[in-house]
Amino acid sequence: MLAVSCVRACSRAFRSATPMRPVHSAVGITVAQIDEEVAKLLELKAKLGGDDGKHQFVLKTAKGTRDYNPKQMAIREKVFNTVVACFKRHGAETIDTPVFELKETLTGKYGEDSKLIYDLKDQGGELLSLRYDLTVPFARYLAMNKITNIKRYHIAKVYRRDNPSMTRGRYREFYQCDFDIAGQYDAMIPDAECLKIVHEILSELELGDFRIKVNDRRILDGMFAACGVPDDKFRTICSTVDKLDKMSWEDVKNEMVNEKGLSEQAADLIGEFVSMQGGRDLAERLLQNPRLSQNKLACSGLSDVKLLFSYLELFQVTDKVVFDLSLARGLDYYTGLIYEAVLTQAGLSGDTLNGAEDSVSVGSVAGGGRYDGLVGMFDPKGRKVPCVGVSFGIERIFTIMEQKAESSADKVRTTEVQVLVASAQKNLLEERLKLVTDLWKAGIKAEVMYKKNPKLLSQLQHCEESGIPLVAILGEQELKDGVVKLRVVATREEVDFSRADLIREIRRRTSEA
Amino acid sequence: MLAVSCVRACSRAFRSATPMRPVHSAVGITVAQIDEEVAKLLELKAKLGGDDGKHQFVLKTAKGTRDYNPKQMAIREKVFNTVVACFKRHGAETIDTPVFELKETLTGKYGEDSKLIYDLKDQGGELLSLRYDLTVPFARYLAMNKITNIKRYHIAKVYRRDNPSMTRGRYREFYQCDFDIAGQYDAMIPDAECLKIVHEILSELELGDFRIKVNDRRILDGMFAACGVPDDKFRTICSTVDKLDKMSWEDVKNEMVNEKGLSEQAADLIGEFVSMQGGRDLAERLLQNPRLSQNKLACSGLSDVKLLFSYLELFQVTDKVVFDLSLARGLDYYTGLIYEAVLTQAGLSGDTLNGAEDSVSVGSVAGGGRYDGLVGMFDPKGRKVPCVGVSFGIERIFTIMEQKAESSADKVRTTEVQVLVASAQKNLLEERLKLVTDLWKAGIKAEVMYKKNPKLLSQLQHCEESGIPLVAILGEQELKDGVVKLRVVATREEVDFSRADLIREIRRRTSEA
Repeated sequence: MLAVSCVRACSRAFRSATPMRPVHSAVGITVAQIDEEVAKLLELKAKLGGDDGKHQFVLKTAKGTRDYNPKQMAIREKVFNTVVACFKRHGAETIDTPVFELKETLTGKYGEDSKLIYDLKDQGGELLSLRYDLTVPFARYLAMNKITNIKRYHIAKVYRRDNPSMTRGRYREFYQCDFDIAGQYDAMIPDAECLKIVHEILSELELGDFRIKVNDRRILDGMFAACGVPDDKFRTICSTVDKLDKMSWEDVKNEMVNEKGLSEQAADLIGEFVSMQGGRDLAERLLQNPRLSQNKLACSGLSDVKLLFSYLELFQVTDKVVFDLSLARGLDYYTGLIYEAVLTQAGLSGDTLNGAEDSVSVGSVAGGGRYDGLVGMFDPKGRKVPCVGVSFGIERIFTIMEQKAESSADKVRTTEVQVLVASAQKNLLEERLKLVTDLWKAGIKAEVMYKKNPKLLSQLQHCEESGIPLVAILGEQELKDGVVKLRVVATREEVDFSRADLIREIRRRTSEA
Repeated sequence: MLAVSCVRACSRAFRSATPMRPVHSAVGITVAQIDEEVAKLLELKAKLGGDDGKHQFVLKTAKGTRDYNPKQMAIREKVFNTVVACFKRHGAETIDTPVFELKETLTGKYGEDSKLIYDLKDQGGELLSLRYDLTVPFARYLAMNKITNIKRYHIAKVYRRDNPSMTRGRYREFYQCDFDIAGQYDAMIPDAECLKIVHEILSELELGDFRIKVNDRRILDGMFAACGVPDDKFRTICSTVDKLDKMSWEDVKNEMVNEKGLSEQAADLIGEFVSMQGGRDLAERLLQNPRLSQNKLACSGLSDVKLLFSYLELFQVTDKVVFDLSLARGLDYYTGLIYEAVLTQAGLSGDTLNGAEDSVSVGSVAGGGRYDGLVGMFDPKGRKVPCVGVSFGIERIFTIMEQKAESSADKVRTTEVQVLVASAQKNLLEERLKLVTDLWKAGIKAEVMYKKNPKLLSQLQHCEESGIPLVAILGEQELKDGVVKLRVVATREEVDFSRADLIREIRRRTSEA
């Protein structure tokens, strides 16, 4: 019993010695000493045999993650093809970065969300963490390679130890599809192209109607100043404003006044602003607003929003874009324009946010903004590379597409096989293997069943199940005549072809499909 | 000082209380209690501010990993396209699994290599590890979803804390491209298709000449028995045999006899066998071998190799396949046929294994085999699903392709942009944005420069640098005439087109390329 009571005493001692002040000198214990003690305790734990000896093998994936089955992969491929085609149409290159980064690369980039980062175990060597997004690795990549301009996309999985909600497409491992433009350019031109891309992709995916909300960090900060929010409360008030898509104004105001100590008057002034939505006209109006027009930051933000809308008109996307002063976005690194795309139809059946009745918004499917300071955080000399980008949260889109596929009459094919090489009688395996070899050589997608003597019926059944449109049937008669019988699965029509004609005929019949 | 000396006392107490026996009851401390104490110590560490205040920021990727730049990505995309096209031609579906698995899912599957697994930090919740290969997650997926037959491919990154060697394409994070056939089928038909796929992919990638070595775990085990290796030494002798591609026979024999205690006579008998290479004829000869023919396991392995070669002849791939009795392969889970593809030309400049003079082999680029027991390890009732598959170690292939691209005169394009929309005079940004919008709408890959008034020369220069073949030039005269000047970058030829004709002309000129 000695050891345990001693450990307890120790930690009591630590607790009482470390109220809220730095304890380095106060207690006289070093981090290295703590590391050593931790290692010893963990070693003891290992000797005890893990979790108190209760061990039962569980057949599952890790919490908040899922496998993709072939049907889901077919949908995923379709979504990626649309997204990548758009990124390429806009001239982007692509890069890839490792799934983990040095822990310190991620440190200090995500504010409060940092607690959601997955760390790797210290197995000797560097301390590593799984990437939390693709933006910070991108900035690290730019600084490390001294790249000052690039237009790139990056599609990869990111990791967040968040509360998962599978039905709403919220996972701990999920894909992001990022498009970013880095470089010193004239104001709002790259920013407008990012919004153009959001418009194109969401339109092409046919997910239903959507809106793209835009705002600007400079307008938010200027607005806070104009409303009398003290400088040191900007960030925390900003994160309360960010909750407006999930909470009522009354609750938000309550949090500002009662939790964060803002004056009621300041809160009411904010309330007036954040209820404003519009387009270029709103930006113009606010430039005349007696409060905001006093603030330099707000004015430059508003002028840029005005300029942005003029480019968006040329890009023909103003039908979906709303200048919305309540948009705040969580991440620390944004410095200018911010935006977020939301689907305005209830694409997910029975899915409402926080159980609210308002089922209009199914949540954000893309977001982004300008982050002109992030690359400089990695550069030893602090050299800045202005960046703007957008990230598609593709899992929620998958979920919607999956539900659409479920309710659709069309079967999702998971292979692209054009023809099954089948036999009508026994002992024709060799002939089947010879023919399928010829077809593969000709680039035709073809299969044989891996049985010596499969029944014709089970071969035809396999075609029905996997949606294979054609069957090339070999029988003794066909071999004698030097032909192959080509059967169309859908119509049961059968025609004999010479080997030479067969390949042409398969190509002809499957290129239309 | 109290706390520290107390922690020290505690750990001393633990140490002395836990010599080599289970300590659960002896000390009276539970794992939960230890967890709690560890958490408290780590919290204290965080308050102390990390690693004793020594902090220097390093701008790098984690050891053994790398970024892919756009040029490398273009090459990677080309390799993947070849690989995926082949997998699809053979009728495979695809799946995906999470990057991490429950730690226990990986436990006991990799033998000695288990020490190379990356574990995640215990942040509360499940204990997780990064996947070590795609085979074990595949088996877990089959068991979990009760799938008894599937032909699937899976392309994803895997993680091994091995000694990296970048120049030789050996990383800690690397891609595997796996193709597997699960199901109860007639012998050697799916196995032969796996080898056919290796043959097709390595031929199409044009990496130079290659050989595919095949052997069978049952032949190895039968051979060991026939040579008088004691049952309990099969595995360890097998892993020594596996070193024959890197060590001379003398060194291998030395390890068997002096390190692993095998009799010299048994070692010499093994030596005779492992020097044998051949085709179907060798399998036939060994079936008559007085030692091997006594062994049931060896005989069934040899008959299957014979059968395999008859299918490989029909698939027209015997030119590259060698039955090689020295092939052993490291992983524990193989139960039957095993194979490995090696490039036989020195594709990597200055790259020789372990500095040996023998630069013929640049090492294995693909490997696989039959693993009939692995899925059963995950099934609660132990139900088996026979599987055979192949894995392409694609990083080494990338390295070779990159070096080929370096030495080639052709420039690797990293975007697919067909046309740059440029302006000849100032103040034409709006017109450029309008035109590029039209082109995007028509599905044409197009760019504008993000400047209000870029110089024509710098616009043309951008085309030269990124290999953009066409420039659509707008000037005051063109606008007045209602035309666009289309310039071919390579020839400097310029022709005016109406807007309606422009799109058709761009398509025509870039579809040939």
